[in-house]
Amino acid sequence: MFINQRKLTIEWGDCDPAGIVFYPRYFAMFDASTMFLINAATGKTKPQLISEYDAVGWPMVDTRAQFFIPSRFTDEVVIESQATEIRRSSFDIRHRLLKGSKLAIECTETRVWVTRDPEDPAKIHSVPLPDTMVEALRATNPAF
Amino acid sequence: MFINQRKLTIEWGDCDPAGIVFYPRYFAMFDASTMFLINAATGKTKPQLISEYDAVGWPMVDTRAQFFIPSRFTDEVVIESQATEIRRSSFDIRHRLLKGSKLAIECTETRVWVTRDPEDPAKIHSVPLPDTMVEALRATNPAF
Amino acid sequence: MFINQRKLTIEWGDCDPAGIVFYPRYFAMFDASTMFLINAATGKTKPQLISEYDAVGWPMVDTRAQFFIPSRFTDEVVIESQATEIRRSSFDIRHRLLKGSKLAIECTETRVWVTRDPEDPAKIHSVPLPDTMVEALRATNPAF
Amino acid sequence: MFINQRKLTIEWGDCDPAGIVFYPRYFAMFDASTMFLINAATGKTKPQLISEYDAVGWPMVDTRAQFFIPSRFTDEVVIESQATEIRRSSFDIRHRLLKGSKLAIECTETRVWVTRDPEDPAKIHSVPLPDTMVEALRATNPAF
Repeated sequence: MFINQRKLTIEWGDCDPAGIVFYPRYFAMFDASTMFLINAATGKTKPQLISEYDAVGWPMVDTRAQFFIPSRFTDEVVIESQATEIRRSSFDIRHRLLKGSKLAIECTETRVWVTRDPEDPAKIHSVPLPDTMVEALRATNPAF
Repeated sequence: MFINQRKLTIEWGDCDPAGIVFYPRYFAMFDASTMFLINAATGKTKPQLISEYDAVGWPMVDTRAQFFIPSRFTDEVVIESQATEIRRSSFDIRHRLLKGSKLAIECTETRVWVTRDPEDPAKIHSVPLPDTMVEALRATNPAF
Repeated sequence: MFINQRKLTIEWGDCDPAGIVFYPRYFAMFDASTMFLINAATGKTKPQLISEYDAVGWPMVDTRAQFFIPSRFTDEVVIESQATEIRRSSFDIRHRLLKGSKLAIECTETRVWVTRDPEDPAKIHSVPLPDTMVEALRATNPAF
Repeated sequence: MFINQRKLTIEWGDCDPAGIVFYPRYFAMFDASTMFLINAATGKTKPQLISEYDAVGWPMVDTRAQFFIPSRFTDEVVIESQATEIRRSSFDIRHRLLKGSKLAIECTETRVWVTRDPEDPAKIHSVPLPDTMVEALRATNPAF
């Protein structure tokens, strides 16, 4: 089972006047974690995947985060990310933000694979996930 | 029934290379909307509430957003915010981000009322909501 | 002489653990102010200007800000923006952030007008400002 | 001569619809770089320095950045940071953001050492730099 891990140090600019991380910042961290997971799973960067499949990206359609323990400036945290579901044109990711051995935040997200509408490039719409993505994500979780 | 409304224009810096809003930015907008709702309901600013009740704020414990329609630079959107549940020391808010008459995003959140631990000011813990907050939020929704 | 003015309320998420605005946030405010100034001067939105002139935008090449008075959550501030210089393919803007009658921040910036390189769309390069922009910005300052 | 170096990978969320880094994001990177430089020079974290000297931090009073080469999503960059001047209660830092061997951005900044006003904790004012800071920063540059 493949779980992507990355270490982060909480920065001064991530925190609010209460001295704890301003929660929208966590979503920026999770967005990058999803990208790093797909990177590690496919062996390709997001710009490579975008140009290879003429895609726009994998925008968020649904995300939920539960916050159990706050983090402060200079805290070191680890984000573990894993695919939990793959469908025809969308997939789910789960992130766990850990402080030491404790679960500080759990976030789940559903993203959709989109390309530009060939008739109106200002519009984007979902299309089936390329096989490369399906296989790469499937390999990250034997439960699939 | 009281619903707080505010208008926003999507900025260049809110958007990503796909040309649509980078979704963590929406959570920053919703955080401000919750603050404006509490402002409008209580008639007090967050700094006033914090100093009056020796509180730290109302950190997020659980939030979920569903994204139906993307927004782009210069789009004008409206965020409607409303309390949907009040408990002993926590409360729920629902935000609807509208583009014209269409629902673009729906976000729900649970926040908790916290003060500093008198024995260790570095720690924060939840306490019962002050009556002012309970009454003000209750007045925003006759269903309570 | 044309000066664009806009009012802003400092948000919780703009501030850091010292309780004052995290200064990179001011640059995001000034970036939007430049866009609103160009909007007001030309009567066109940034997407309109970009598509009309096949431009990429007006990226920053040089900016300096001096911070005289800090601002806090819920403070109301005004940003006054004005063109101060126009050259062949670049222009200067000055922003003054005011708290009441006091100058809290002064920021100057030089931006360049860029389009995509027709031979390699991944590259951008500067080109002469379109006449519309020159006339519109010139009209904002009789000193030109 | 001591120069603090750190490597960064440009993230999707750092970039704007033109596909290049939204420049206010660079200031957040430089702010963290100053913190890491002071960390490395003093051997103490910002929270340690703040509590040891009853300080509020080292807010920015003047910063200028010149942008020579844009950066894009997934670009790897290096930020080199160094003290360039130390005065009674303020100091200057220079950051160079490099792409390979090329200078992409040069940023200079002046920061001031501040504590809370003992008579009104809502106010902050500058005080002489602690000797620890002076010696640590001086050690980073033999030109002092």
